[in-house]
Amino acid sequence: MPVLKRSELPAEQVRPGVERRLGYTPGLMLVMVDFDDGPQDRPDPFHSHPHEQASYLAEGEVIFFMDGEETHLSPGDVFLVPSGVPHAIQLLTRHVRLIDCFTPIREDFLSEAASALQK
Amino acid sequence: MPVLKRSELPAEQVRPGVERRLGYTPGLMLVMVDFDDGPQDRPDPFHSHPHEQASYLAEGEVIFFMDGEETHLSPGDVFLVPSGVPHAIQLLTRHVRLIDCFTPIREDFLSEAASALQK
Repeated sequence: MPVLKRSELPAEQVRPGVERRLGYTPGLMLVMVDFDDGPQDRPDPFHSHPHEQASYLAEGEVIFFMDGEETHLSPGDVFLVPSGVPHAIQLLTRHVRLIDCFTPIREDFLSEAASALQK
Repeated sequence: MPVLKRSELPAEQVRPGVERRLGYTPGLMLVMVDFDDGPQDRPDPFHSHPHEQASYLAEGEVIFFMDGEETHLSPGDVFLVPSGVPHAIQLLTRHVRLIDCFTPIREDFLSEAASALQK
């Protein structure tokens, strides 16, 4: 399906207050993540993955942590995560929307979406 | 550079009224395209590329054309372009911002950015 209308995309609840919508081609995945449980007084746990990641901050404000540095991001800003590098974000506003792109695709997200559908 | 603040990112003029800002990891490129020359009364020329593409419409309204279909997209909608498939957009508003992700990276965009810097 080449077009994903947001209003028709199934949303998966990652945790209470956090929704994920995704689309993908064979080697590329775009993930829209809507956080509504901010602000936070500390970052999410650091995590890493073999997938390369490029993210666009569409709405809200966050701090991005990587390589021992922390940067305040506003809408329109971008962060880049090479394969395997630990990183984290901290929400500074109630609502945040991130557009995360990954290559290769996050098979783990597809598995979680499939098992959510089976519930 | 893991963080790209929009205010500090060099903007390349693709054509009058269209600016491109980009960031990338070895295998993934994120391209922010700001159009300010809409609306258009017809689509841009169809084009294709071997790169897979996933795009998020951040601002404005467009029609997306692919596979003989046309779809009206609003902010928050996404389109996906497999390798080699011709596609086009038509701007429906003066301003449009697209977030385009590609794998592999668009070496042609890097070359154009490099030659723009040399001018």
